[in-house]
Amino acid sequence: MLEIGSLFVFLFLSMEREAELVCDLTLDSVRKSLIRQEDTIVFCIIERAKYPLNSPAYNQSYASIPGFSGSLLEYIVRQTEKLQATAGRYENPEEHAFFPDNLPSSLVPPWNYPQVLHPAANSININKMIWDMYCNQLLPLFANEGDDGNYASTATSDIDCLQALSRRIHYGKFVAEVKFRDAPHDYEPAIRAQDKDALMKLLTFENVEEMVRRRVAKKAMVFGQEVNLNLSNDDVDCQGKYKVDPSVVSRLYVDWVMPLTKLVQVEYLLRRLD
Amino acid sequence: MLEIGSLFVFLFLSMEREAELVCDLTLDSVRKSLIRQEDTIVFCIIERAKYPLNSPAYNQSYASIPGFSGSLLEYIVRQTEKLQATAGRYENPEEHAFFPDNLPSSLVPPWNYPQVLHPAANSININKMIWDMYCNQLLPLFANEGDDGNYASTATSDIDCLQALSRRIHYGKFVAEVKFRDAPHDYEPAIRAQDKDALMKLLTFENVEEMVRRRVAKKAMVFGQEVNLNLSNDDVDCQGKYKVDPSVVSRLYVDWVMPLTKLVQVEYLLRRLD
Repeated sequence: MLEIGSLFVFLFLSMEREAELVCDLTLDSVRKSLIRQEDTIVFCIIERAKYPLNSPAYNQSYASIPGFSGSLLEYIVRQTEKLQATAGRYENPEEHAFFPDNLPSSLVPPWNYPQVLHPAANSININKMIWDMYCNQLLPLFANEGDDGNYASTATSDIDCLQALSRRIHYGKFVAEVKFRDAPHDYEPAIRAQDKDALMKLLTFENVEEMVRRRVAKKAMVFGQEVNLNLSNDDVDCQGKYKVDPSVVSRLYVDWVMPLTKLVQVEYLLRRLD
Repeated sequence: MLEIGSLFVFLFLSMEREAELVCDLTLDSVRKSLIRQEDTIVFCIIERAKYPLNSPAYNQSYASIPGFSGSLLEYIVRQTEKLQATAGRYENPEEHAFFPDNLPSSLVPPWNYPQVLHPAANSININKMIWDMYCNQLLPLFANEGDDGNYASTATSDIDCLQALSRRIHYGKFVAEVKFRDAPHDYEPAIRAQDKDALMKLLTFENVEEMVRRRVAKKAMVFGQEVNLNLSNDDVDCQGKYKVDPSVVSRLYVDWVMPLTKLVQVEYLLRRLD
């Protein structure tokens, strides 16, 4: 009996290890990644805030690039994505291009990324919404009015912000997959009924969202403070002078990052049983 | 008499304003810029530390790019600099390309950057030393061993680090210019004698360097901590778990950033009276 018990334990552990090798996607690893991505997003926003708005970079009529009719930002993003595609960036299922059509193939040997998502994930890309939100709504909230001519640096900083937001929001695919695996029976009825509202309800945890809102505001305070050798770090809460207003970072999460992540999750789950 | 006095005041204020328009370079503005650039450098290093070393990105024999024989990083940096040159990045005297030969012209209307430096500044570019320091000495100190295949993202993160370090170190030109303007008689004898050692001595303030060393280590602690809603920010000093070891950031400044900045200052001052 003991031996059979040991065999079961051995088989169970082997299966566990196999599962780990195929995919170490767990609720905990997904949570850790989301929290780490918050830091990246706050760093990127603080770095973009170094420059004024620099509106010519977003103006179609400003840049006169032969054979191209969009804004300087769009030109730089398109060219950057082409370059990064040749270096294999979009082979990683966590990455999504803003201009995915006609990207060149990767010139580096293929990397064997773990395939943990349902193949339907490939068809979900909401970067058009993210671009519009970033350029037209978020940027004017935290970039000071003005123009210092540093359009190339500004656009580079915008790409960092756009890519960090896109990665975070599309990470909803992994969030949805791990939630589904954790409790498939909870989701299956709403998926079969293609009931978006029911899925949205299943994916909404108001207390968690409130905690995220408070945490990202705190990160904006901690990372956006003037670090001074003579001050205790505890003074951060009463200094009130931050590189980016913490309430803007909260609003970014409450109004856009969390709702758009849930949109990605719903879109993914709707196709999860296809 | 009053009217003549008013005229003098008016002329004086006009000259002041003119001087401000031509150049608002002061010891204070330079100091503020250097301190702000520390934050950028620490953010960049923390972001690069998200990825393992990913050594194939630095290996000449790895990437097989038609018509190109360097590493993937060199390829991505060269292409990125070409793109940023078309957007006018290198028109700004604070920016220096790593591969400045044969960069394309800017496609955007010229920006009237204030010309505050002696024209000799254009011939000073120590990016080869910065590249070598970053890839061969700094990176192995803070990037964990390993390979996750994200070479495009890693290289993008490397470019952010390289550009931030290059901007900070070449900012020595502005530091030297403002110090020279503040006390030209202190520097002129050593410049006329072309005495590098004497200039280096004039530019070295050990107490200031010690304060910078401590401040950047503190920034690595503050920006590299796990921000937790339940912890006071004062716990940062005793948590001991940072995304990048603060002593590596201190060493980066003590061994490389400050000495290389002084090298730029000396090179600039040697030609300041040409």
